Amino acid sequence: MSPSLQFDRLYVTLVDVRNPLNIGAAARAMSNFGFPHLRLVNPYEVAFRDARSAVGAAETLAHAEVFKTVAEAVGDCSLVVGTTAVRHRDLQHDLVPVTTGANSIRSHLASGEKCALLFGSEKFGLSTLDMSHCHWLMHIPTTEANCSMNLGQAVAICLYELARDPDLPIQPRAGDPASSADVERITDTLIEALRVSEYPKLNTSKSFHGALRRAIRRLQMQKGDAEFLLGMLRQMIWKLNQSKEKEA
Amino acid sequence: MSPSLQFDRLYVTLVDVRNPLNIGAAARAMSNFGFPHLRLVNPYEVAFRDARSAVGAAETLAHAEVFKTVAEAVGDCSLVVGTTAVRHRDLQHDLVPVTTGANSIRSHLASGEKCALLFGSEKFGLSTLDMSHCHWLMHIPTTEANCSMNLGQAVAICLYELARDPDLPIQPRAGDPASSADVERITDTLIEALRVSEYPKLNTSKSFHGALRRAIRRLQMQKGDAEFLLGMLRQMIWKLNQSKEKEA
Repeated sequence: MSPSLQFDRLYVTLVDVRNPLNIGAAARAMSNFGFPHLRLVNPYEVAFRDARSAVGAAETLAHAEVFKTVAEAVGDCSLVVGTTAVRHRDLQHDLVPVTTGANSIRSHLASGEKCALLFGSEKFGLSTLDMSHCHWLMHIPTTEANCSMNLGQAVAICLYELARDPDLPIQPRAGDPASSADVERITDTLIEALRVSEYPKLNTSKSFHGALRRAIRRLQMQKGDAEFLLGMLRQMIWKLNQSKEKEA
Repeated sequence: MSPSLQFDRLYVTLVDVRNPLNIGAAARAMSNFGFPHLRLVNPYEVAFRDARSAVGAAETLAHAEVFKTVAEAVGDCSLVVGTTAVRHRDLQHDLVPVTTGANSIRSHLASGEKCALLFGSEKFGLSTLDMSHCHWLMHIPTTEANCSMNLGQAVAICLYELARDPDLPIQPRAGDPASSADVERITDTLIEALRVSEYPKLNTSKSFHGALRRAIRRLQMQKGDAEFLLGMLRQMIWKLNQSKEKEA
């Protein structure tokens, strides 16, 4: 994935965040998914200073902008989206799941506009006043039993969802499958190994060859693995025959 | 979102994890998305103790199981998936993005089977040996500039992706897959057969055991076929040993 120019217009905005580890984790996820712009509203100063040491977050944190109020932080953005874990409280906003929300945000960014994505404090989330600056709210679907997410993880999932290509085709499994001739060769060699080993069912069960052939095909072997396996079987046959010759 | 019964069959498995905050964060995300079963391989004892105090993670951590080796931790699972940030190193496994991988895992769980999802240590990720227990690997698409994710965030995104869009049509895989313990038994028995056959690479190539383990796992064997193959190998070993005894 290469960072999109459109992601340049998204402002991840942390409001009243207190834990430096969370600021660092947010910055690290931003770096992972190619979102360069971090804004902090009223951060606890010590937290911000400590956060600057987070792994892989240096660049993002060095350029972070600090604001006193949400109004100032979102001033240049034409779309402001809040995140919340709350679904039952008297929300006065539209609330959409992150998949739907990410689509809307992507469209907005694609049209050349800026968007602020707000995350609230670890303990209380966004306040009603913070939310009043938002056009709509977004939530990550969780279990009812525990809807309170860790801040760094919530930021990571929102950015992952924004960066995820919803039209991504499902890719076929990699690897070069063994040809039918290879598979047949394995079947024959295995039968030979069983013959030399005096495997009892080989002669007594009429359906044995067919069952073996089907079992080998079910393995859906790759080309390299077929050759690997063939080499091992041949060694066993060689050893079995060698022992027989000595016996004779 | 209500927790799915199928998620009961997924085992989030942290290997050699050192930071209690990461164990706690993993447990919290599991609780958020409804995955109850945590397994720890060789955890740093202090880290595990400290982690038990993580917010919203109490239940998950209280029931976490501890194992000494990856082999023991994945023994009852018929699908083992590793996670990695590495895409350029010489990976000897199929590597799929998390969206595709999550689909495969969901299908596997839907068919009533168990799956282990492995995460490696903060510093080094999964080792080549850890990976040799995996059927395939999964990665989270990130920027090239910073592909190293925080462990707790990586766990959260994988579980989010697994829990996302539960209405997606799910097609169970045909057949009853072999458990990891069955597959490990085949690997051991094959190595024994090669030893008795004096297969040359067995002692000269240091990486041979890992290569063999990966090749056997790629076959994605079914339960019945595993037993079938095991019986054949045992007959060969018996015959090889019998010949040796006669020689002596």
